[in-house]
Amino acid sequence: MYHKLFSDNLIDQIKQKKSIICIGLDPRIGGSGAKIPQNIMERAKNNYNDAIWEFNKEIIDHTCEITPIFKPQIAFYEQYNALDALKKTIDYIHKKNSLVLLDAKRNDIGSTAEAYASAIFENFKADAVTVNGYLGSDGITPFLRYIAEGKGVIVLIKTSNKSSGEFQDLFSLSIPNIPPSGIEITVEKGLLVRNYIQMARLIKEWGANPNFVGEGNSFGKFGYSNIGGVVGATFPEQMKLIRKEIPQNFMLIPGYGAQGGTAKDIINGVNEDGLGAIISASRSIDYAYQKLDETEFGAAAGKAAEAMRKAINQELEKSGKIAY
Amino acid sequence: MYHKLFSDNLIDQIKQKKSIICIGLDPRIGGSGAKIPQNIMERAKNNYNDAIWEFNKEIIDHTCEITPIFKPQIAFYEQYNALDALKKTIDYIHKKNSLVLLDAKRNDIGSTAEAYASAIFENFKADAVTVNGYLGSDGITPFLRYIAEGKGVIVLIKTSNKSSGEFQDLFSLSIPNIPPSGIEITVEKGLLVRNYIQMARLIKEWGANPNFVGEGNSFGKFGYSNIGGVVGATFPEQMKLIRKEIPQNFMLIPGYGAQGGTAKDIINGVNEDGLGAIISASRSIDYAYQKLDETEFGAAAGKAAEAMRKAINQELEKSGKIAY
Repeated sequence: MYHKLFSDNLIDQIKQKKSIICIGLDPRIGGSGAKIPQNIMERAKNNYNDAIWEFNKEIIDHTCEITPIFKPQIAFYEQYNALDALKKTIDYIHKKNSLVLLDAKRNDIGSTAEAYASAIFENFKADAVTVNGYLGSDGITPFLRYIAEGKGVIVLIKTSNKSSGEFQDLFSLSIPNIPPSGIEITVEKGLLVRNYIQMARLIKEWGANPNFVGEGNSFGKFGYSNIGGVVGATFPEQMKLIRKEIPQNFMLIPGYGAQGGTAKDIINGVNEDGLGAIISASRSIDYAYQKLDETEFGAAAGKAAEAMRKAINQELEKSGKIAY
Repeated sequence: MYHKLFSDNLIDQIKQKKSIICIGLDPRIGGSGAKIPQNIMERAKNNYNDAIWEFNKEIIDHTCEITPIFKPQIAFYEQYNALDALKKTIDYIHKKNSLVLLDAKRNDIGSTAEAYASAIFENFKADAVTVNGYLGSDGITPFLRYIAEGKGVIVLIKTSNKSSGEFQDLFSLSIPNIPPSGIEITVEKGLLVRNYIQMARLIKEWGANPNFVGEGNSFGKFGYSNIGGVVGATFPEQMKLIRKEIPQNFMLIPGYGAQGGTAKDIINGVNEDGLGAIISASRSIDYAYQKLDETEFGAAAGKAAEAMRKAINQELEKSGKIAY
C-alpha cells in the first residue's frame, strides 16, 4: 500500500488485479447449510478460533491475487468468540497485499463512536469500516480523524434486503420548517426525494472535504472520496439514481450471488472509468465447495471468485466501461 | 426474574426499586477526562479485563438496589479487548437481581443479524439490545425468535445528539408512488411526518404482535411491548409526539446528565401510570468520583444514582405520574 488514502489504495488494487470483486469472509459453523468443512473442524479439535483462521487463510490464499479487498463481517466472529481469528485474518490479508473492509455497521456518537473507531482501526487494523448514518454527522465526526489519516468509511444508503424500502424509500423533503399538515405543499424539483437519496447527499457532503479526496489525475477522471456508500445489487434502478448523486464516492455493492444480484445488476454502480464500485459476495465464494469435495474448498472458492470476476469484467467491457 | 417477557420484568424491577433509572457501564481507561481510577489500574497490574471488572463490580454493588436495569455499551469493551469483563459484568448484574440492556445498535439482515442476536443473547446473555432500524423489518426479523422467548429490542427513534435532525427530522411521506417533482401535492393529515415518527410507527407495528406484549392487568393500564425505542432526553418536545405514537412501547431515554438532559426533560416520555420509560446516564454516575477521593468511586456513583432517582421521582410526583 503506497498511498495515504484508502480510496487511492483501492484503485491501485483494482487496476493491478483487474478486478472489482470483494470477498466477504463470513465463517459459519454447524447447522445444516453452508459451513466450515468438517475436516477443518476436526483438525482444529473444535477450537473455533483455529478452525476459522485455517478456513479463512485457505480462502484468502486461493483468491487474493484477484481480490482487491476482503470484507469480514464481525457478527460471525463475535458469535463464535473468535475475534482473535479476525485479527489474524486481517493481518494475513495485509501480508498478502489486499485491503480489508470490516463490515460492522457501527453507529454511535461522541466517545462511544470513538471507542468503536479505535477498536476497528487500532485493535483490528481494518482499512475501512461500514457505518449506519441514521444519527447524522455526529455519527461520522468521531471517524474523521481516522479518515484524514487514510481510513475509509462506507455508509449504508440503500441496503440489499427486500424490506429496505420500508424506511429508505420514504419520500422526504429537505426543508427545515413544519408545514401545517393536511395541506397543499409545492415541491420544487429535487427537494422531494426518497430517504436513500437524502442519505447519499449527506455522504457526498461528508466526503467532499479535500483531505478525504484522492489523487484523481494519476488514476482516472477524478479522485474518489474516502467516504463511500452501500447500495444493494438487488436494486439496479435505485443504484443508477444514487450513482448520479455521488459520482466521486465508492459504492460497496453487496447482494451479488446468494442474494440474487448478477453482473448486469451492478453495472449502474460503475463509473465510465471502470471505478467507483466494489461488488461483494460471501456465501457463493466461501462455500462454493458445497457440491464438491470438502477438502477442495479453497480451490472451489478460487474458481468461484474467478468466475465472478470474469462475469463482471465482461459486463463492464460490453457497456464500454473500462475493464482494465 | 419471574416473567417471560423483558417488558414485564422491567416493570417488576421499576415497582420493586421505585426507580426508572438505567446506569450505563462505559469503562474508560487513560486520557485526561473521566476514567477508571488509578488505584484500580495498579491493583489490576494494567490488565484491562481485571480493571474493568473490578470497576463495574463496585459501581453495581453501590447502585443495584435502586437500578432496575444496567446498560453496558459494547464499544468500550471492544476497544479494550475486554469482552470477558463484559460477560462477567452481565452475569454479576443478573446475580444482583437487575436487568441488562446491551447497547450495541446492531443492524443487519438474515444470517448476519442472526449471528449478532446469537452473540448478544446466547454468548453475552443480555436481556435486551439496542438496534438501528434503518434496514426495515428484515433487520428486526432475525431477532423475533428471541423476542418471542422474552428478550427485548430497543430501536433508535430520535437520538440525543445535536445533529440527529439531519436525517431523523426530515419530513417524509408514507406513500408508495413517485409524484412528479416540481409540482404541488396535497398531503393528508398524518401522512407528512418527520422520519423519527415514521420510525416510531414501524416500531409500533413490529411490537404489536400479541406474543410480544406483556401482562397489562397486573401492572398498569395496559401491557407493554418487548420492542421499544430510543428517544434522547435532549428532545423533550419530540418525545411528547413520539409518546403519543407509541403508548405501549418502552422508551430508553439517554442524554440525562453529562449530555444536558434534566428530570424535567424526560417527563414527556413517562406514561400516566409512571411506566414506559427508563432514563439512562453513564458518565455522570460512573465517574461521579472525579472531584472526590478516587478510592470512593463506588460510593460516589451510589450517591449520584440516588440523586438522579430522587430528582426524577420528584418530577414524576409533581406531574401526577405515579412515583411508585
